[in-house]
Amino acid sequence: MELNPERQALLRRLGHPFTDLRLVEQALTHRSAGQINNERLEFLGDSLVNFFVAEALYARFPNATEGEMSRMRAALVKGETLADIARELKLGDSLILGPGEMKSGGFRRDSILADALEALVAAIYLDAGLEACRQRTLAWYGARLESVVPGDVNKDPKTRLQELLQGRRQPLPRYELVDTSGEAHNQSFTVSCELPAQQLSFRGVGSNRRSAEQAAAAAALSHLSTQR
Amino acid sequence: MELNPERQALLRRLGHPFTDLRLVEQALTHRSAGQINNERLEFLGDSLVNFFVAEALYARFPNATEGEMSRMRAALVKGETLADIARELKLGDSLILGPGEMKSGGFRRDSILADALEALVAAIYLDAGLEACRQRTLAWYGARLESVVPGDVNKDPKTRLQELLQGRRQPLPRYELVDTSGEAHNQSFTVSCELPAQQLSFRGVGSNRRSAEQAAAAAALSHLSTQR
Repeated sequence: MELNPERQALLRRLGHPFTDLRLVEQALTHRSAGQINNERLEFLGDSLVNFFVAEALYARFPNATEGEMSRMRAALVKGETLADIARELKLGDSLILGPGEMKSGGFRRDSILADALEALVAAIYLDAGLEACRQRTLAWYGARLESVVPGDVNKDPKTRLQELLQGRRQPLPRYELVDTSGEAHNQSFTVSCELPAQQLSFRGVGSNRRSAEQAAAAAALSHLSTQR
Repeated sequence: MELNPERQALLRRLGHPFTDLRLVEQALTHRSAGQINNERLEFLGDSLVNFFVAEALYARFPNATEGEMSRMRAALVKGETLADIARELKLGDSLILGPGEMKSGGFRRDSILADALEALVAAIYLDAGLEACRQRTLAWYGARLESVVPGDVNKDPKTRLQELLQGRRQPLPRYELVDTSGEAHNQSFTVSCELPAQQLSFRGVGSNRRSAEQAAAAAALSHLSTQR
């Protein structure tokens, strides 16, 4: 079995060299496209993502309460967040959709993207075991997981970054659009977030300018939180 | 650190020889009894139980839909089921509760028992890793997991057993109370379920006669499902 170039590129971005390529195919197949689709994998992947995020929060915040961890987890595993990660990985281009979903732009829809991402998590688990799966999943989360803070989950990264810098009496960040790519229906935006006081710049990618800015702010927050 | 005889007996029933006994102590401590309690462990344990049950259902029912697996999982991880397992393990006797909860019979309450069980799952994970934890958790589930069937989760084991035997035109099971133990507030009932056609008898334990009958029926169902 051979994957098309688009899917081969996706595998490189995912960072897992699949032994069983049928798992990739299944994970990318929406129920609108066939009997063998990603719904069962999504069921398993959902429980894996929940566990990895719970474990990461448990280890990272030894003093957080159960309620604080629950709120942080809810923000990290919700469909919107998973769909953002899927967009960063440009999953939409490789989805296998039925004709109806294709026409109506299903490759852009949060729920379809999030489900496919969870299915890919399960696919990696079945292909290579828990440790490989945990590493990949947490790597995809990246700055999102590193920048989350108890009690702050309802504030977006840009707001939190601004408050953090104001608290330090440092100049505010500067955001700049550095790249757009992809076709009209499926564009990808890259934004830089510059911190003048630190003379550092961070990048974020998203399906629109706003979410790219948030991703860049999350990367900056993550860096600053390791500096304290 | 030494555990009292009651807790030592609990560890034997749990089937995991803890290296770090402080984890046991913490897992058994309700928030009413102190600052260091089982709430954080319960958060982590909940995600582990969810994952183990999802994985077991995924492997056992290759043809079940995502919806069927979700319904089966919901029935298996709900507080009532976890509390029943906790009662079979006689967890109530070893709980560490604040004076208020003690007085009002907190050791009998479903939510307190379920939370402590989930906390013990996390404690085993932290003590000995994923594989030991998965084995213990699935062993505690035992017949419950083995007797679950897609589409039938809303029927209780006694009903399903009766329907199965009627479908085979075999005589109905006979239930008999064979033992009661424990103090008045915390009794444990053992019931046998005899299958006349098979000349076999199965046992179940519960906090009341009804739940012990259901557990015995689940054990019988589990046996019959492996015979088909």
